[in-house]
Amino acid sequence: MKISRLDEVKKIKPDMEGAKDVYKQVPISRDDGSPTFSFRVFTIEPGGYTPFHIHPFEHLNYVIEGNGAIVMENGEEREVKKGDFALVLPNEKHQYKNKSTSEPMLVICAVPKEYE
Amino acid sequence: MKISRLDEVKKIKPDMEGAKDVYKQVPISRDDGSPTFSFRVFTIEPGGYTPFHIHPFEHLNYVIEGNGAIVMENGEEREVKKGDFALVLPNEKHQYKNKSTSEPMLVICAVPKEYE
Repeated sequence: MKISRLDEVKKIKPDMEGAKDVYKQVPISRDDGSPTFSFRVFTIEPGGYTPFHIHPFEHLNYVIEGNGAIVMENGEEREVKKGDFALVLPNEKHQYKNKSTSEPMLVICAVPKEYE
Repeated sequence: MKISRLDEVKKIKPDMEGAKDVYKQVPISRDDGSPTFSFRVFTIEPGGYTPFHIHPFEHLNYVIEGNGAIVMENGEEREVKKGDFALVLPNEKHQYKNKSTSEPMLVICAVPKEYE
């Protein structure tokens, strides 16, 4: 069993083309012996966003804090906020945006362990 | 893409032998097209607990609200609270307990989709 507090997990600024003011933590991964899935947390600063991109694996999301939007493949934005869950399917183009001007947005982004 | 708010997800009292005051919601599962994993949320009322049990699959947890403990296979309790992540490995005996006398404890419990 591994228990970790989010504020003790190393935070890095990932090298993601098309991202603005996004930081990543990985509280659970294959390095901990997780057989299938990893839990990552993205912190998106006010006005920041992840790349508008596509990949062959899914995201399972939970919004820990803040509010913003997920951009769908047709460009339409769907609002999300603290307490929301989202499933982004494999090969579904998507982007996460923090729409706040003052508060960070924190999102759990779970992926198959092969991808993190 | 599916987005859902936790408070709009159906809540049931699961039939779990050895559990006390536990409710379950399933915001993401194979019914939504999730290829690999499901996100469940357990609400454990003050003084409540899940069964002290073992199974051949892992749990990936995030504590959304409240505070309590995860009992390890040797019976030792490890405190957890809002903001903590836990990985329970396959075949590792475990139990979640709400140690508060007044506040519910809400925990994301992600499992391979075959199990939920």
